[in-house]
Amino acid sequence: MQVPFQTIEEFRACLADAPGPDADAIAAAEARNAQLTKPAGALGRLEALAIWYCGWRADPRARIERPQAVVFAGNHGVVAQGVSAYPAEVTSQMVANFQVGGAAINQLCDAAGARLTVHALQLDNPTDDFTQAPAMSEAEFAAALALGWEAVDPGADLLVCGEMGIGNTTSAAALSAALFGGTGADWAGRGTGLDDDGVALKARVIDAGLALHGEALADPLEALRRLGGRELAAIAGAIAAARAQHIPVILDGFIGTAAAAVLETAAPGALAHCVAGHRSAEAAHGKLLDALQMEPILDLGLRLGEGSGAALAINILKSALACHSGMATFAEAAVSGKS
Amino acid sequence: MQVPFQTIEEFRACLADAPGPDADAIAAAEARNAQLTKPAGALGRLEALAIWYCGWRADPRARIERPQAVVFAGNHGVVAQGVSAYPAEVTSQMVANFQVGGAAINQLCDAAGARLTVHALQLDNPTDDFTQAPAMSEAEFAAALALGWEAVDPGADLLVCGEMGIGNTTSAAALSAALFGGTGADWAGRGTGLDDDGVALKARVIDAGLALHGEALADPLEALRRLGGRELAAIAGAIAAARAQHIPVILDGFIGTAAAAVLETAAPGALAHCVAGHRSAEAAHGKLLDALQMEPILDLGLRLGEGSGAALAINILKSALACHSGMATFAEAAVSGKS
Repeated sequence: MQVPFQTIEEFRACLADAPGPDADAIAAAEARNAQLTKPAGALGRLEALAIWYCGWRADPRARIERPQAVVFAGNHGVVAQGVSAYPAEVTSQMVANFQVGGAAINQLCDAAGARLTVHALQLDNPTDDFTQAPAMSEAEFAAALALGWEAVDPGADLLVCGEMGIGNTTSAAALSAALFGGTGADWAGRGTGLDDDGVALKARVIDAGLALHGEALADPLEALRRLGGRELAAIAGAIAAARAQHIPVILDGFIGTAAAAVLETAAPGALAHCVAGHRSAEAAHGKLLDALQMEPILDLGLRLGEGSGAALAINILKSALACHSGMATFAEAAVSGKS
Repeated sequence: MQVPFQTIEEFRACLADAPGPDADAIAAAEARNAQLTKPAGALGRLEALAIWYCGWRADPRARIERPQAVVFAGNHGVVAQGVSAYPAEVTSQMVANFQVGGAAINQLCDAAGARLTVHALQLDNPTDDFTQAPAMSEAEFAAALALGWEAVDPGADLLVCGEMGIGNTTSAAALSAALFGGTGADWAGRGTGLDDDGVALKARVIDAGLALHGEALADPLEALRRLGGRELAAIAGAIAAARAQHIPVILDGFIGTAAAAVLETAAPGALAHCVAGHRSAEAAHGKLLDALQMEPILDLGLRLGEGSGAALAINILKSALACHSGMATFAEAAVSGKS
């Protein structure tokens, strides 16, 4: 779908205009669910997930057949502050690894039957260090939102957003503090493997960014421009594009959820087409999910990013739809109801 | 594999002779895991699951390609006591539904690429009501164990055990009380949908069974013979057969885990080749998992049986092996390590 915005204000207008789910499809899916050959409620959360998905697809007997995973990669000026356990060149090295199929996300997409597209966002031109200046200019931010929007395949029936970017848990933590309050210490975690001193430094770096940008952070989109990386902006753009095209989204971990939270705080309800794929071992992710009142599908201690936890959840959602849309009804199977 | 026992005592000897995992494969899988292109530990539980699976398959780079699901169905004399919300004929009706592909387990096996086999165990000849007599004779019990053993395909590389049997949460609850202590009220739950009065009646029925069989329940296999249904015995036989053939097992919900617990209490360590697929909404299942010190992979509020929660977990385990065995190493991908 063509990108319907050129400026940040036009993007904001897209959020306000976002479509909702189809009420008739929800009602029909609920009616079908009540007749399937199982005790009422016996498929637990799978039932609610299937009905939610049917609503967004406007199809009471939908299936998931064309899931897409997008991975956005960006580099971060704030890495100069020593906030990551890995050197910045790992971002481009891992992009190369994604491109030849060697990373976790490649295997997970294969296992889920998902098509993976990888988008490197100016890796040779890191964002500015947010302790010194806004990470992105308005033009850079709008371009990253647009790149994310364009990355979504209109033919997809499910979207997973992943990321790669050395330093981006620092960006996500600063953004989380801007959106939901608290200090660097409340949101800084180990990322790819910091020790205690590293986490303390990261918290101080976040606090410095929060202090520099001050009141400007009250606007969620402006907070993303000032603290976020390009890959976070692209995720926000992709999630908004999915909504416009009635494509449900599985959110991944801390970074992807922080990017998503920008939309929800900017336009409450903007994540109604999203579900949390998992709860990451990065502790701040659980805090974000609580703030967003989202219950993750999986809780397996992953903390890799790349979209890995969300990709792992694709098969759960596929299975929910397979049950909903494939099972026989009591009448079809001639099974007796409750005594 | 030919059934290596004819009597219960011979089955007991099989449990004592069970093989362990391959230590060399575990060491090699751990070494490989440490070199994959991700921060150490970043795939969380997937890493431990992959290494565990490789050990049992004696292959440090194993994959899951031929999963099998077996569903055993049985009828229960104790249903005469009014312990189920559904009439007993639903067992055979659901078996027919499994055979034509209309049940949840059919869809879940399709979504997981698992082959499903369904085994109806003398549905026209329910076990005896355990409040009046042992549910099975010794010959019937041994035959059900053997049927379960034979149901396992030696060519499978993963096994899921499911069940169908109106009344079988009552059997599983009585068995759990026999194995781990407590009264009917501690283990009775809503099953397919009992109200409070129904749960109270079910607890009294369980207590009556515990009182009738008394000290004979101290032997776990004897407890299974006296309280269990044929499908529970078949699950126990299948789990033991899988162990003998180095096939890892995903346990399902309350009934399957109760049957498995018989093996663990009869021969500690007998479930080392098993993992808990999920935590059921039937509250007693969580208690059983705690008693067995097993951490479920999924926790999605399912309470259907049929092997549904375990089948849903197949793709998680497949994905764990896909990452472990398919990812590039740091050296292969020329990705830099920690700074």
